[in-house]
Amino acid sequence: MARDAFRNIGLVARSRSEQALYSIRQLIHLLQARGCHVVVEKSLLAALEAPELQGGSTKQIRSCCDLVIVVGGDGSLLGAGRAFAGSDVPLLGVNRGRLGFLTDILPSEIETRVNQVLDGNYEVEYRFLLDMQVRREGTLLTQGSALNDVVLLSGDSVHMVEFELFIDNLFVYKQRSDGLIISTPTGSTAYALAGGGPIMHPRLDAVVLVPLNPHTLTSRPLVVDANSDIRLRVTTHRLNPLVSCDGQDGFRVQLNDEIRITKLPQRLKLLHPPGHNFYEACRSKLGWSNRLGEQ
Amino acid sequence: MARDAFRNIGLVARSRSEQALYSIRQLIHLLQARGCHVVVEKSLLAALEAPELQGGSTKQIRSCCDLVIVVGGDGSLLGAGRAFAGSDVPLLGVNRGRLGFLTDILPSEIETRVNQVLDGNYEVEYRFLLDMQVRREGTLLTQGSALNDVVLLSGDSVHMVEFELFIDNLFVYKQRSDGLIISTPTGSTAYALAGGGPIMHPRLDAVVLVPLNPHTLTSRPLVVDANSDIRLRVTTHRLNPLVSCDGQDGFRVQLNDEIRITKLPQRLKLLHPPGHNFYEACRSKLGWSNRLGEQ
Amino acid sequence: MARDAFRNIGLVARSRSEQALYSIRQLIHLLQARGCHVVVEKSLLAALEAPELQGGSTKQIRSCCDLVIVVGGDGSLLGAGRAFAGSDVPLLGVNRGRLGFLTDILPSEIETRVNQVLDGNYEVEYRFLLDMQVRREGTLLTQGSALNDVVLLSGDSVHMVEFELFIDNLFVYKQRSDGLIISTPTGSTAYALAGGGPIMHPRLDAVVLVPLNPHTLTSRPLVVDANSDIRLRVTTHRLNPLVSCDGQDGFRVQLNDEIRITKLPQRLKLLHPPGHNFYEACRSKLGWSNRLGEQ
Amino acid sequence: MARDAFRNIGLVARSRSEQALYSIRQLIHLLQARGCHVVVEKSLLAALEAPELQGGSTKQIRSCCDLVIVVGGDGSLLGAGRAFAGSDVPLLGVNRGRLGFLTDILPSEIETRVNQVLDGNYEVEYRFLLDMQVRREGTLLTQGSALNDVVLLSGDSVHMVEFELFIDNLFVYKQRSDGLIISTPTGSTAYALAGGGPIMHPRLDAVVLVPLNPHTLTSRPLVVDANSDIRLRVTTHRLNPLVSCDGQDGFRVQLNDEIRITKLPQRLKLLHPPGHNFYEACRSKLGWSNRLGEQ
Repeated sequence: MARDAFRNIGLVARSRSEQALYSIRQLIHLLQARGCHVVVEKSLLAALEAPELQGGSTKQIRSCCDLVIVVGGDGSLLGAGRAFAGSDVPLLGVNRGRLGFLTDILPSEIETRVNQVLDGNYEVEYRFLLDMQVRREGTLLTQGSALNDVVLLSGDSVHMVEFELFIDNLFVYKQRSDGLIISTPTGSTAYALAGGGPIMHPRLDAVVLVPLNPHTLTSRPLVVDANSDIRLRVTTHRLNPLVSCDGQDGFRVQLNDEIRITKLPQRLKLLHPPGHNFYEACRSKLGWSNRLGEQ
Repeated sequence: MARDAFRNIGLVARSRSEQALYSIRQLIHLLQARGCHVVVEKSLLAALEAPELQGGSTKQIRSCCDLVIVVGGDGSLLGAGRAFAGSDVPLLGVNRGRLGFLTDILPSEIETRVNQVLDGNYEVEYRFLLDMQVRREGTLLTQGSALNDVVLLSGDSVHMVEFELFIDNLFVYKQRSDGLIISTPTGSTAYALAGGGPIMHPRLDAVVLVPLNPHTLTSRPLVVDANSDIRLRVTTHRLNPLVSCDGQDGFRVQLNDEIRITKLPQRLKLLHPPGHNFYEACRSKLGWSNRLGEQ
Repeated sequence: MARDAFRNIGLVARSRSEQALYSIRQLIHLLQARGCHVVVEKSLLAALEAPELQGGSTKQIRSCCDLVIVVGGDGSLLGAGRAFAGSDVPLLGVNRGRLGFLTDILPSEIETRVNQVLDGNYEVEYRFLLDMQVRREGTLLTQGSALNDVVLLSGDSVHMVEFELFIDNLFVYKQRSDGLIISTPTGSTAYALAGGGPIMHPRLDAVVLVPLNPHTLTSRPLVVDANSDIRLRVTTHRLNPLVSCDGQDGFRVQLNDEIRITKLPQRLKLLHPPGHNFYEACRSKLGWSNRLGEQ
Repeated sequence: MARDAFRNIGLVARSRSEQALYSIRQLIHLLQARGCHVVVEKSLLAALEAPELQGGSTKQIRSCCDLVIVVGGDGSLLGAGRAFAGSDVPLLGVNRGRLGFLTDILPSEIETRVNQVLDGNYEVEYRFLLDMQVRREGTLLTQGSALNDVVLLSGDSVHMVEFELFIDNLFVYKQRSDGLIISTPTGSTAYALAGGGPIMHPRLDAVVLVPLNPHTLTSRPLVVDANSDIRLRVTTHRLNPLVSCDGQDGFRVQLNDEIRITKLPQRLKLLHPPGHNFYEACRSKLGWSNRLGEQ
């Protein structure tokens, strides 16, 4: 287990709640006691009321840190994932939120688990992200990246959206529905699951397209290679649908706009404490039965 | 078959398309040839370019007509259904739209089918409607009626709505989802079906509650007595969900608003040509197999 | 609450486990201390090793008791329900099994809850049952009753069954599938739920037909009036499908056999301790969220 | 398009129907007219009443032919696929059955389509198969291969099967259900689709596990890498579940038996006429909407 030691550690969090700040202070204490150099994401500095700490922008943390610890729920880690994908800096998640498929260290385990990781005792996992581009008459209007999913939504909720789907330049279908989720394996346990999609193992190099309440009963989730070229063409003129990456504020599209989803070349490097197990996370978070217990 | 003859016939349509107007003119001709007195919904008069016709408001048609013929898709009939529910005036639907569970006379059959009905050869069916009321701190803010469904929706599409559900003053569950459909049997073949709800026979005195992409996997459609007192309490403070009746423009609700759904005392009286059959409509519109053919 | 007192109490159980016998002895003690006359279902007598007790057949218990207490899981109560439906004798369930929508007294609550009921402090609920008849060329071959469901199954599991469905003499569809569940509201939280059916409130006078893994994607659960006349005609000649009531051993049917399902005129009378609540049972047994807790 | 010409053609069919024989005779005529050498699967010879033809066993066809044409439905091609997987001999399917995702030449197109393929104008596609092994206390009891799916089923239909699932030696869950489908992408449009699984693109190197009517509502289809080591351990003692490959007659397993499913090293080589398109097959066979038409 003779791995390079982590010396420069970035700290990132979205929440300013007392619980989150408590865990962050605990982490700072632990890291400084080990002689690590800590850089706190600068917007977090004020909340910590610790002027002696070094703050830094995401860009600075990318360039000077060799590990970033994210404190919060899966939402925080999604944001950090988009920010740090493609850098060599790995992420480690400490759970403060509700469900945590990505942030798998509990607050009560910070001391033992983070020390294990800093001792070089961890597992590495790579997750891919999606690149989303919207084009109007050939001109790029906006671009985004997603660790979980890109979602096309009707945007006013009352009317259905209409679109055509093309994969690798082949026409797939024309659909009327509340929208379409294009999800990575990482996102398959999030919104795509609520929409009726399958669970996909994180290592799978695939993407699932989940129609939301489709008008026709024969539409089903469709799993394709993650390297596919996925294009949606909006055919609704009555409303302005939304495209959203990882559930962030959406971008309004209109008739004939083209939404293109491909795999981002840059991957995210995630660290887990030893013994991490995707199926164990499913059992505890989705309520699957245990081996010895009753169903 | 010695039924009272229909003498005064109202004509209602939402579409101004050439096809709709063609069918309406055909109906006027047929009705006048039989000596019926025709009253055209007044907003339709101009489109018909027939100044010699008598126009009338919905209210006037309610009071003077003994039959209303609706030309259009199920959307047109939903509007007419809400307008004429509780009157003695029955509705007859001529299909010009896409799917037609309610409007079951095809344009090509107008002459034979409408004549059958005018000859007293028809079947009567009653459909119930839902009454929807929104209250804020006890004050009634808005009220509506629905033949298909009342839907609570997140309204900005990106975030989930949170609410508590009470039936007959019993707490049922707290839910995070894209929304909840409360559907009549009439609506069970519309949006509720896209949301995963069961098909309910039109004569059933029941309502189905269909959660839209619920956050928990154990939420399921729930069928209760149509005479139940259904209340939703909004527990989201981050967004302003929408409540919509039959897919019309929604009403914005906020934290702690109460949405109450009950059965409207007034029913809708629908006429069908002889031989009408709900299951035949399912087979042709949902693509169910035929008796002799292959699946 | 001046209800007639229960004087003669029948005791019924299917399990001979130590836990079940413990609860039964506890009940006998409690009932005798109150001066009740106890009649134990005769096949249970030997297991109890209490020769001084009075044993009786189901028929004797029906005629001489004014309350029957069932100890076991929902399976035990299903059996007792079929046996005592139509009598005036109400059932009270003490839970020893896994899931308990019907048997809602926990072993630890026997003393307080059973005393409440014997004091006249209880709620009465009626559940309807289904009557199932199989006919071959017009001749009745077998008949059964079901509190939960009647299920048609392929019987050899590898091939699909084919059948035609008629409701009130109207052809509904021809289907190829693994089978069809015809479920009461009582059964809607059992096998029908696993098959994708909706939950139906126990008071609803309706039946749901749930296709099992149908060959066509447009088949959906169908809810109809409980007083419907439901007929299945087997159109498979390659296998001998099974018909089963409440998951009991099935009856083999063959090509052209007709299975008829109607509502049994006799109802089952169930007692619940005060405060019984169907939605509370759903929350605890299906894992729905609580009011104050997180989802 | 300077591909090696096909000179020796094997002909395989399961059906002996008039339609199948008609298509086979048409093929023989066409092939002989082109100077090809035709070898007919020997069990088919008698039905053809053409003693001048050369018959051969599957093994002989494997060794002497450079193309095999399969006449029939997907069931015929599944059988041929298992028989010819791993050989260099590609399969070409002529559809005589009901649904045809694999056999994509219509009888009416035989002349043009088969000539195109023989002219070297075709597309090559590889499909992987599953290897299934049953072990009892370490001893191999039976082995099979599947192009569509391996299915564990309760076998008597009335009781649920119980099993534990392990993937790559990690415990996944213990489940009570009607069974479990382990399906290739090829099988994802067959039984797995009826069971609620997603559609997987044929080129995807993945396997989907679809629980059949699971007892718990949180069980969902799970997509994993096709190179996973999948093991089921039977934990039911009350019944003898069945394991079946591609819907063939099943093998009875018992308590503690282990079923292991891995990817077969040998692949199947399929030929398609030019312009073959998986999504087009979905549209026509699943009833998806067309580009220009209405949904």
